[in-house]
Amino acid sequence: MKALIFFGHGARDARWREPFDRLSALWCEQQPQVPSAVAFLEMMEPNLAEAVAQLVGQGATAIQVIPVFFGQGGHLRNDFPKLLEACQLQFPQASLSASSAVGEDTQVLQAIIDFSSRAI
Amino acid sequence: MKALIFFGHGARDARWREPFDRLSALWCEQQPQVPSAVAFLEMMEPNLAEAVAQLVGQGATAIQVIPVFFGQGGHLRNDFPKLLEACQLQFPQASLSASSAVGEDTQVLQAIIDFSSRAI
Repeated sequence: MKALIFFGHGARDARWREPFDRLSALWCEQQPQVPSAVAFLEMMEPNLAEAVAQLVGQGATAIQVIPVFFGQGGHLRNDFPKLLEACQLQFPQASLSASSAVGEDTQVLQAIIDFSSRAI
Repeated sequence: MKALIFFGHGARDARWREPFDRLSALWCEQQPQVPSAVAFLEMMEPNLAEAVAQLVGQGATAIQVIPVFFGQGGHLRNDFPKLLEACQLQFPQASLSASSAVGEDTQVLQAIIDFSSRAI
């Protein structure tokens, strides 16, 4: 069974996670056959391993991680691949893979342009 | 004259800014009558005051700042309003305003959902 994780940076202010919870809710509405979870690199729970454990517990065998970051800096180029590899070793019963950062996607950028056009 | 600033967090790795430069290029293609700039809270140049100075130098009298952040945590709730107010005092010849964070926008979130659907 496929599953998906929206993976974000995390922040001290609990309200920072609101868009992540909205993403998870939207996904659940639109793709109810593919369970999803959110996970954070730091300062927020759950971390990636906890989210993977939850989805594996639901029967996931192929988990796609979506890095919900704009740019690909040190966190995504250095920290994240190591974290993903450690999770893969910890959970051999599921195949883990990751997409590029959402901020690399032309349609995501176009949605930001459209939002900006409405704001001026 | 209206103008727009895409305002991001900033990072140590210079490649992190690529999506911001793409946003600025897309905006320039689609809204060439409204000059734009990028600006960063920390670790990258230009900062907000430098971007405002550049646009005011081009004749901007109304500048809309678009916070290119997912969540609204401490940076946007505490640091950013103070920074915007300081820039407004420094540049009284232009009216500065700000939108909500792009991650609050339903269409931006939907674009992330669509990207994720293509990734699984």
